[in-house]
Amino acid sequence: MPSFASDNYAGVPQEVLDALAEANRGPAVSYGADEWTARALETFRAHFGPDSRAWFVTTGTAANVLGLKAVCRSWESVITPATSHLNVDECAAPEHLGGLKLIAVPTPDGKLTPDQVVAQLGRVGDEHAAQPRVVSVATSTELGTVYSLEELRALAGIAHEHGLLLHVDGARLANAAVALGADLGAVTTGVGADLVSFGGTKAGLLGAEAVVFLRPGLGEGFQYLRKQHGQLVSKMRFVAAQLDALLAGDLWRRSAEHANAMARRLAAGVADVEDLRLTQPVQANAVFTVLPREATERLQRDHRFYVWDEATGEVRWMCAWDTRPEDVDAFVADVRAVLTAQRS
Amino acid sequence: MPSFASDNYAGVPQEVLDALAEANRGPAVSYGADEWTARALETFRAHFGPDSRAWFVTTGTAANVLGLKAVCRSWESVITPATSHLNVDECAAPEHLGGLKLIAVPTPDGKLTPDQVVAQLGRVGDEHAAQPRVVSVATSTELGTVYSLEELRALAGIAHEHGLLLHVDGARLANAAVALGADLGAVTTGVGADLVSFGGTKAGLLGAEAVVFLRPGLGEGFQYLRKQHGQLVSKMRFVAAQLDALLAGDLWRRSAEHANAMARRLAAGVADVEDLRLTQPVQANAVFTVLPREATERLQRDHRFYVWDEATGEVRWMCAWDTRPEDVDAFVADVRAVLTAQRS
Amino acid sequence: MPSFASDNYAGVPQEVLDALAEANRGPAVSYGADEWTARALETFRAHFGPDSRAWFVTTGTAANVLGLKAVCRSWESVITPATSHLNVDECAAPEHLGGLKLIAVPTPDGKLTPDQVVAQLGRVGDEHAAQPRVVSVATSTELGTVYSLEELRALAGIAHEHGLLLHVDGARLANAAVALGADLGAVTTGVGADLVSFGGTKAGLLGAEAVVFLRPGLGEGFQYLRKQHGQLVSKMRFVAAQLDALLAGDLWRRSAEHANAMARRLAAGVADVEDLRLTQPVQANAVFTVLPREATERLQRDHRFYVWDEATGEVRWMCAWDTRPEDVDAFVADVRAVLTAQRS
Amino acid sequence: MPSFASDNYAGVPQEVLDALAEANRGPAVSYGADEWTARALETFRAHFGPDSRAWFVTTGTAANVLGLKAVCRSWESVITPATSHLNVDECAAPEHLGGLKLIAVPTPDGKLTPDQVVAQLGRVGDEHAAQPRVVSVATSTELGTVYSLEELRALAGIAHEHGLLLHVDGARLANAAVALGADLGAVTTGVGADLVSFGGTKAGLLGAEAVVFLRPGLGEGFQYLRKQHGQLVSKMRFVAAQLDALLAGDLWRRSAEHANAMARRLAAGVADVEDLRLTQPVQANAVFTVLPREATERLQRDHRFYVWDEATGEVRWMCAWDTRPEDVDAFVADVRAVLTAQRS
Repeated sequence: MPSFASDNYAGVPQEVLDALAEANRGPAVSYGADEWTARALETFRAHFGPDSRAWFVTTGTAANVLGLKAVCRSWESVITPATSHLNVDECAAPEHLGGLKLIAVPTPDGKLTPDQVVAQLGRVGDEHAAQPRVVSVATSTELGTVYSLEELRALAGIAHEHGLLLHVDGARLANAAVALGADLGAVTTGVGADLVSFGGTKAGLLGAEAVVFLRPGLGEGFQYLRKQHGQLVSKMRFVAAQLDALLAGDLWRRSAEHANAMARRLAAGVADVEDLRLTQPVQANAVFTVLPREATERLQRDHRFYVWDEATGEVRWMCAWDTRPEDVDAFVADVRAVLTAQRS
Repeated sequence: MPSFASDNYAGVPQEVLDALAEANRGPAVSYGADEWTARALETFRAHFGPDSRAWFVTTGTAANVLGLKAVCRSWESVITPATSHLNVDECAAPEHLGGLKLIAVPTPDGKLTPDQVVAQLGRVGDEHAAQPRVVSVATSTELGTVYSLEELRALAGIAHEHGLLLHVDGARLANAAVALGADLGAVTTGVGADLVSFGGTKAGLLGAEAVVFLRPGLGEGFQYLRKQHGQLVSKMRFVAAQLDALLAGDLWRRSAEHANAMARRLAAGVADVEDLRLTQPVQANAVFTVLPREATERLQRDHRFYVWDEATGEVRWMCAWDTRPEDVDAFVADVRAVLTAQRS
Repeated sequence: MPSFASDNYAGVPQEVLDALAEANRGPAVSYGADEWTARALETFRAHFGPDSRAWFVTTGTAANVLGLKAVCRSWESVITPATSHLNVDECAAPEHLGGLKLIAVPTPDGKLTPDQVVAQLGRVGDEHAAQPRVVSVATSTELGTVYSLEELRALAGIAHEHGLLLHVDGARLANAAVALGADLGAVTTGVGADLVSFGGTKAGLLGAEAVVFLRPGLGEGFQYLRKQHGQLVSKMRFVAAQLDALLAGDLWRRSAEHANAMARRLAAGVADVEDLRLTQPVQANAVFTVLPREATERLQRDHRFYVWDEATGEVRWMCAWDTRPEDVDAFVADVRAVLTAQRS
Repeated sequence: MPSFASDNYAGVPQEVLDALAEANRGPAVSYGADEWTARALETFRAHFGPDSRAWFVTTGTAANVLGLKAVCRSWESVITPATSHLNVDECAAPEHLGGLKLIAVPTPDGKLTPDQVVAQLGRVGDEHAAQPRVVSVATSTELGTVYSLEELRALAGIAHEHGLLLHVDGARLANAAVALGADLGAVTTGVGADLVSFGGTKAGLLGAEAVVFLRPGLGEGFQYLRKQHGQLVSKMRFVAAQLDALLAGDLWRRSAEHANAMARRLAAGVADVEDLRLTQPVQANAVFTVLPREATERLQRDHRFYVWDEATGEVRWMCAWDTRPEDVDAFVADVRAVLTAQRS
């Protein structure tokens, strides 16, 4: 059954399995001192700049929490949109595992603004208050929106002006980059970000993520932090080979462009439907829309997708690297049919 | 270059790659609500008993720490041999991530005895002292030794008698089981253990481990703990498929038997060599021996293995599922040649 | 210089020093196994009910964090008003020390409502989200408001209906109780609360607080938690004697009534002043008001008080057990004079 | 009943209560921005040197854990004697609260040697192992022994040579200093130590301890760490006044000299008793001895003291600032009588 539930319902491209097979050539040194890891690290440097340093981990939760923990002391806090994955979908990992306080800021579109950051800085130096250290934003966001390069540059600027860092949760960084027609480095290092959680899994891997520090002097001792938090994979070559398969060529770009195109196709297909309202601009691979509740229930009999907000009836339709145009079209047809039927 | 450095230098059997390819059939529900995970969980129950419950994670550190954290409160401690991986090779993960105090007990052979456990129970009920909650032993141990079923039963008995639990670090559980001619359940559930870290990676997987609670009532809420600690893999089917490939048939047994046999072959090959002393009985897939330092240095030019104890000159030779007899024989020949040369 | 800055600027009543002197009678068993502690524990039971159990600690931060930590697992969260001390004045202690996620809910008056609690329960059972476990409210609140008994009862009811607990941060519990003409037990145990942080310091002690579990079955093992978190005072009798001096007789009531009366006197004195607006009802010992910024600056030359909100010009005037009527009157006169001068 | 159980059974000298009364002069700024705190900080600088910085806390557990946490990253460890209070009497606070791994080294007399430190440094740079960062020793030790200045200097030297810090747990620092005829600064700053937990409580205070960083650059941000861990006392003047009363004049010295003298008097009184063996040199205020078990039981009917080691029958007799010579003599007489009776 095709799915519009999540981009992590997708399988993996054949190139990725091929890369695993290629890496399976007899014994190799463990814990990352192997040739595949060396090559993948070089590939990351090519994307994120010569001063960057990537560390591979197994999940996005780990990438987010370890990256932030590496740059925060126990009394420091992280300013982030209230809707961010960091805030609502990590089961309190930043708080419990990182010991971090999140300052969750409500936004209409999942995107933080410099003014909202400044508004959180009133108690710097007051020992009773957690001290802001990081601005953390995702692009594309949980709401499928994408920061422009100017917006990211402004956030990095305001962060640095106040001694803070800019973290980019890049679980869907490829989708954001292709939405802007930009490279991965351009939307991160290029705008002045300090660290990135790079997501490989939603981009098509079996399970491979990276923490990338974009400037020297950040993340010192990260090898210990990663090991200590259960994220040092012993047969690292099989993680590295996945990431290299994604990033060394244009697999990341092709996959993200396809996913984004499928979301646009879906949005276009339903744009003129009465009783259906897009709630966010479709800038990456997600479509957010409000439907009548009965329509949602009827559609979920045949299609997989999530209700995003029970209160408003908002639903999320997510496309992936493997979403087929014909499945989009069939879904669009069903949406139209169900809504037409409901109206009559 | 063949390696006697570690069983995590090994690659993976073709069956495992085949299982990944088989699992890559279009979209599937994420986070473990898929058919591969259901099947693998069933396979674990077949091994560890109908009351057991397995949870898949990505590293052995995570398996150990999350399993122990799930059954301990913040003031509780874990009694373990001083040489255990838990104590010396987790970069303080149990302490930092789990908040656990380890009571590290010196042993000659890496194996804890009931008397040693009892000796640590003198301050039960004293609020100034961490309160023992778990006895944690590995089998096979870090020193390549294997607990007999009687020894494990005695440890479980003494633990339960005092309200403690028995945790088995099974990073090399398959090696221990085949050494005893026993099933995986027999060396764990069968002897009264309460929870197990089951190691798939050293047994031949790319990276897949499990926490297995062997009795109802343990590990309540573990789904949250796993997610929070960055160990909930989104495309779980690819972890589950690996574990199922290992455990549904006899791959685990064949692989472990081979690794153990290679260690025995290696030990037999050097048993009569002058100036070389086996320091531990060879019961699983490791050979521990003391060599003259110059011999070690000479051998390391052509062979990969670790010095275990710089002070005594003890070295570790580890065999894996992919160790070839001809490589063992060649290594034995080199050891003999080097030591003969040194004597003359 | 008299102060309207905080009730923790106040010294201590002579009765409290006398109690310390009385407790200083030669050697006594340490860590709480002494007669003063036994007596103080009995006094707490008299206030909070026969099923309650108090534990003495040294700061309000410790009382809040240890109480909550005792009843939450690592993945559980605490619903609390955004303005609560717990959320904004504990330097991320709940997050870092307790590993707790706070769900901070905006309110106009610092008081949470049952509807706001229910609105946070949408993801119960979803492993990606922290699971709500406690509703934490302070009375009197950070904004000087006081929950009615009905309001507290409704919060306890909704909490229990959903399997949550009600925690009362009672840093100023005495002020709230006397505001309602109620006993300490009536505003806590009586309304169905589950645990309390009882504040002695702001009520007049040198430094003595308590965590009080109001029902059997809560707080099991708390003696270890307290010790582990650096809150087991060795010469406990000197903490216990303070608390007993406060609570065995009516010192708590006299002190709180006086502080509240001084706040009402102050509010009444400025109620009709043009250009001055009370922003919260004066229900306990705090007066919140908005002044022209220049008036605030002029007043702070001679008087101590805090600006509460730099953005709006809101200030806080706090009264204590030792606030003198003549100092209130002099302050009122100065406020009137400054505002009159500014208008002209 | 006089007590030889612990120096924390003692009350407080009248000077300390007088200091509290003196500090109770109307309102004062809270959280340490008061004149008593300023004066006490100056007194600490006079003792520990112009580059030192003291922070006041409420318990020795807090002083130890916060001091160490301030200088360690999550993957760093602390080398300490196995018998240290840090290791056996903090209910896993260093592990749980600090996230620190303790490397516990067995010693005959509670005193660590430079060789023992060096023996723990074999895995520096290995990401699988916790990285040693601090050498932590107490003086006087848990066994009543005292490091010579040369011994401390050697420990500081070896620590610094390897990039580690020397922490002195000074719960009984005054007893150690007077044993050596040295000042408090001489046994800490003077020997090259980096940080100290200074104990006021066992020296005669109600409850006041300090973390003292002895060199610039250590403890940055400690104000946040202290607040976050529930150790920022709001009415700080009452903690500061105690510490100033102890340290501004010679109260600390008089009290410690008296306690030590009482221990010597006690040891001398029983030195020639048959069937009684002193197990440690009496260098501070503790006497360790082995008695026949029946003698211990008989003596405990009339006297308070602790059995130190159930296995060997070793007991601890502790003297304090308030131990009276006549009580020592009466106790000695009873010991002699009981042991004589038992022999016959």
